[in-house]
Amino acid sequence: MQFYENGFRGGNPDVKDAAPNRRDYAGHAPMPDKVDVLIAGTGPAGLCLAAQLSQFPEIDTMVVDRSPSNIVKGKADGINTRSMEMFQAFGFADKVKRETYWVNQTSFWMPDTENPSHIKRVGRVQDVTDDSSEMPHILINQARLHQLFLDFMKDAPARMQPDYNWSVRDLVVDPDAKEYPVTVTLEDTGVNWGETITVRANYVVGCDGARSNVRKAIGGELHGDAAHQAWGVMDILANTDFPDVRQKCLITSANEGNVLILPREGGYLFRMYVELDKLNADERVASRNISQHDMIAAANRIMNPYTIDVKEVVWWSIYEIGHRMTDKFDDVPVSEAATRMPRVFTAGDACHTHSPKAGQGMNVSMQDTFNLGWKLAHVLTGRSDASLLHSYSAERHAEARRLVETDHEWARIMSAPLGQSELDGGQEPRFIQHFKANLEFTGGLAVKYDESALIAAPVHQALASGEEIGRRFHSAPVVRVADAKQMQLGHIAEADGRWRIYAFAGTEQSTAIYKLADWLETDPNSPIVKHTRAGEDIDAVIDVRAVFQETFDQIDYSNMPPLFKPCTGKLGLQDHEKVFCTDHKGAGDIFDMRGINRAKGCMIVVRPDQYISNVLPLDGFEALSDHFAGVFLPA
Amino acid sequence: MQFYENGFRGGNPDVKDAAPNRRDYAGHAPMPDKVDVLIAGTGPAGLCLAAQLSQFPEIDTMVVDRSPSNIVKGKADGINTRSMEMFQAFGFADKVKRETYWVNQTSFWMPDTENPSHIKRVGRVQDVTDDSSEMPHILINQARLHQLFLDFMKDAPARMQPDYNWSVRDLVVDPDAKEYPVTVTLEDTGVNWGETITVRANYVVGCDGARSNVRKAIGGELHGDAAHQAWGVMDILANTDFPDVRQKCLITSANEGNVLILPREGGYLFRMYVELDKLNADERVASRNISQHDMIAAANRIMNPYTIDVKEVVWWSIYEIGHRMTDKFDDVPVSEAATRMPRVFTAGDACHTHSPKAGQGMNVSMQDTFNLGWKLAHVLTGRSDASLLHSYSAERHAEARRLVETDHEWARIMSAPLGQSELDGGQEPRFIQHFKANLEFTGGLAVKYDESALIAAPVHQALASGEEIGRRFHSAPVVRVADAKQMQLGHIAEADGRWRIYAFAGTEQSTAIYKLADWLETDPNSPIVKHTRAGEDIDAVIDVRAVFQETFDQIDYSNMPPLFKPCTGKLGLQDHEKVFCTDHKGAGDIFDMRGINRAKGCMIVVRPDQYISNVLPLDGFEALSDHFAGVFLPA
Repeated sequence: MQFYENGFRGGNPDVKDAAPNRRDYAGHAPMPDKVDVLIAGTGPAGLCLAAQLSQFPEIDTMVVDRSPSNIVKGKADGINTRSMEMFQAFGFADKVKRETYWVNQTSFWMPDTENPSHIKRVGRVQDVTDDSSEMPHILINQARLHQLFLDFMKDAPARMQPDYNWSVRDLVVDPDAKEYPVTVTLEDTGVNWGETITVRANYVVGCDGARSNVRKAIGGELHGDAAHQAWGVMDILANTDFPDVRQKCLITSANEGNVLILPREGGYLFRMYVELDKLNADERVASRNISQHDMIAAANRIMNPYTIDVKEVVWWSIYEIGHRMTDKFDDVPVSEAATRMPRVFTAGDACHTHSPKAGQGMNVSMQDTFNLGWKLAHVLTGRSDASLLHSYSAERHAEARRLVETDHEWARIMSAPLGQSELDGGQEPRFIQHFKANLEFTGGLAVKYDESALIAAPVHQALASGEEIGRRFHSAPVVRVADAKQMQLGHIAEADGRWRIYAFAGTEQSTAIYKLADWLETDPNSPIVKHTRAGEDIDAVIDVRAVFQETFDQIDYSNMPPLFKPCTGKLGLQDHEKVFCTDHKGAGDIFDMRGINRAKGCMIVVRPDQYISNVLPLDGFEALSDHFAGVFLPA
Repeated sequence: MQFYENGFRGGNPDVKDAAPNRRDYAGHAPMPDKVDVLIAGTGPAGLCLAAQLSQFPEIDTMVVDRSPSNIVKGKADGINTRSMEMFQAFGFADKVKRETYWVNQTSFWMPDTENPSHIKRVGRVQDVTDDSSEMPHILINQARLHQLFLDFMKDAPARMQPDYNWSVRDLVVDPDAKEYPVTVTLEDTGVNWGETITVRANYVVGCDGARSNVRKAIGGELHGDAAHQAWGVMDILANTDFPDVRQKCLITSANEGNVLILPREGGYLFRMYVELDKLNADERVASRNISQHDMIAAANRIMNPYTIDVKEVVWWSIYEIGHRMTDKFDDVPVSEAATRMPRVFTAGDACHTHSPKAGQGMNVSMQDTFNLGWKLAHVLTGRSDASLLHSYSAERHAEARRLVETDHEWARIMSAPLGQSELDGGQEPRFIQHFKANLEFTGGLAVKYDESALIAAPVHQALASGEEIGRRFHSAPVVRVADAKQMQLGHIAEADGRWRIYAFAGTEQSTAIYKLADWLETDPNSPIVKHTRAGEDIDAVIDVRAVFQETFDQIDYSNMPPLFKPCTGKLGLQDHEKVFCTDHKGAGDIFDMRGINRAKGCMIVVRPDQYISNVLPLDGFEALSDHFAGVFLPA
């Protein structure tokens, strides 16, 4: 964690220096009538975007929500390893790790063949495969997660807060307007219920859920399958003789249906998903009059011979599985993409809905806006052309489609009756097979963006076989040379909208990495020289880090080129956190772990959202220059 | 982290439920005129004690300080591994780890034999020996550390805050008074400067520094040696070509003196201790007129050929080394100990002073009051006889003496001229030898309390050869059975004033641990039965945890006795965090690492301050009962 770069200032280093011209949120202060970005909704998608934009106080961002305050409980609870990696970039992963439940093992229960009215454990699976991520899979109260984003926003330079009790009723885009082309009608949902005001925005992002008014305003429709199965969910404080109550469990009974158990934060609370009766095609949830008492009774039948003694029902709900999505996640029809730039986006449930049981919804929603946030920042700060924004729908729509399909399949498998060979142990039950096969997907680690201006063709992929272009940068252990600290290389990445180049030194041409550093710092064709503005720190746009194959005590740190020890900040202080090496204490060798070519080394170019944009040889100067020319305008 | 034990409550789990009858700190509220404990001073000793007592809202605690607010910068900065272990119990070790500098390596520089006017690196030492502690040795701005304690107090049930701008002027103890025998005169150091009020207290703890009025009031005097060496200290933001500026460095020049470099939090700041000229016996620091400019110049001379370009001097000070301590850390003369109970204590600099360069002062001060806090709580809540309080001075005075002696020796070695065989590499320089030999001591890990009612004779020590009676419980990796979570066994311990028994299962008599559990839960002679009050949770006073030799998937968790799955809290919820086993993922086997007898198992009895009180066989019922009878009164 770096701070004091502009001089000493005491206190909590997570509280950043406030921007001088930030919005005044005091009660008497007027609401803005023009903003750069208006975000509708303070769920995970909206707050993740707001948190990202709060790092850019020069961008006026407004976040509205129809509710009067943050939620207290309920809703989603699963945070996969990929989201945890993102939380690391926001700086609150450690806090989340400390106070949440970690899903270490998932256990599977089925009817006991000798006594089919009883369940028994038929398998266990380690939930996070070794070295799939350095992060745990965790479960947390969604309200608490919201608060962590809200705290981050409040401590950011913009000191951002949501405007609660305002809902987007409608919006109109004027395609000819150069500035603030979106006119948004906000409706008061508080004391002056129904009154409206108008705000003009450069961009609007609808994170306003499955009934999104933003989506409706741009003509988006959710298509797909509203499946006919009802599930109940409840968060309970309960005692039980079921031994795996503190493990994630998938339980299939012979005749009573299924239960999914998700232990939660604090050591006592757990969530249960209980499969309820099949619905008829014309039935809907509201007509069923199912209560939490029915769910508790069903759970007790399914888990026989074990019993659950509920002490407190914290929250409960009934839902039916639907898998639906819109055709596009912005307001520009495919046919007009060449001539028109997007102004309105949808994210999260506003554009894709699915079952909550695979624990994907909240994660995919946050990843939507983590994809969008830096692109909006690039465009609004004038670093990139507005056409960059087309990539949001392109990248995330493909991803959402994969999610909906996978989720559909999973729901089918979970609800299908068990075959005889599964019941008698003749084959591994399909739900275990499927669970194992999908671990990378459910971890959020299977996302791979297609080739585009942002995702290079895999010409030089072989130089880093374990860091696939289009997928997230996979962290590994390193040691920081200056202070010999063991750490994760990926934890360098902060949610600050900067690109990163990880330059891995090779043994064959040991001077290549130094030549690269010199070229990057001084050559007119260097992307750093081209895209960094006068007066900005040399790492303001593209942050370069070096990784050497030696251990820290074998490296001559004096000998590092200026790019790897740059002087930055108001005082021009040396930055000692650019140079890394392999671990000397048995944590693993990053070159081996990630298939980095030891002889040649390479460069790995990583986007602000941690996705790998390119892999290039250390002397791939022209290719690197061309690559960034596809992202940035000249400074 | 366990919460919701009394029902769901949203929000930050570190904010505990407020106690109903806590003190009102609002501006208009009167100051209390009677308190259980009055703490003078809000340095590390005072705040550590206040934080401990904030867990007991039934104890009225008042914390005063002559300053108007927390400090902003300066003073101490070293936190050894033992203090970090204590911070873990207070719940903020993760936060500290995230935002501080970690001392991973210490490097040593001496004159280059070929060019003695230049320094060169002559050695490196790993600063925290493998498995000496699971915690790092860190450096942090003392003001920030204060804030973490202040936050902890504010979030505790007592919602405790200091009363700033009040100083203890004097106090009088009435040995015959049964209640509130100490009358304290507080002097206003704020707007009504010099005005006084009187507060009566059951106990007063002077954490008011080297000029302590509390110490003077009980007739304490600092004896010892005010050594005649002047050192300068400065916290600076500076650039340098010295390659080890981000490592702790001990630098000895040929003729210009010594420098100690301590990198600090944030990646840029570092502290330098610069040896200044020898003082004459009749000189004192104030007469020298040494400025920060002299220090910077001296540092540049000592570090030749490297140079330091200072951008900001954040803080600087001059001091001379003194090693002094009082005869006793409470108000009862040795001759009266049998008939009189202590009412006034001193801690930290108020009773022992020493050089800051070994980074011990702040650590020992906090350990002083971490030793005292639970004892005061035991006595004030009526669980223990007041004679328990004699053990504070006995235990900490012996420890302080060891510190003063070690520190004296270290100062001598650091200031001694280098011998020829050191200079020419013929022998390892003494300062490296000495540094290595003292790593356990400087880590705070060498503390060993003498045999007493609290520290048993080592009759059964062989059952756990790596967990020495009288020393701190040395954590090791385990897996929590209920949720298969990898963790450190020592991290169970919270700063909650509870005792802990770690019961390690043996293989020879595999039922012994179950018999122990039954006996502890039900036998009239069990310390749990004897010392837990009616209506209290079964683990309210003594918290028992079981550790098995199997891995989590080999254990039948259903089969655990009630003591290992107790129902506690207002809702009577099952606690699933009492049963542990050996790690299955290569983190190490706690039985091997700590020399636990595999055949017989054992019990390790640990005090609330994490020191090992006894090691007993699993069937040592009578000895266990007797042991706790020496600590607690019958409930």
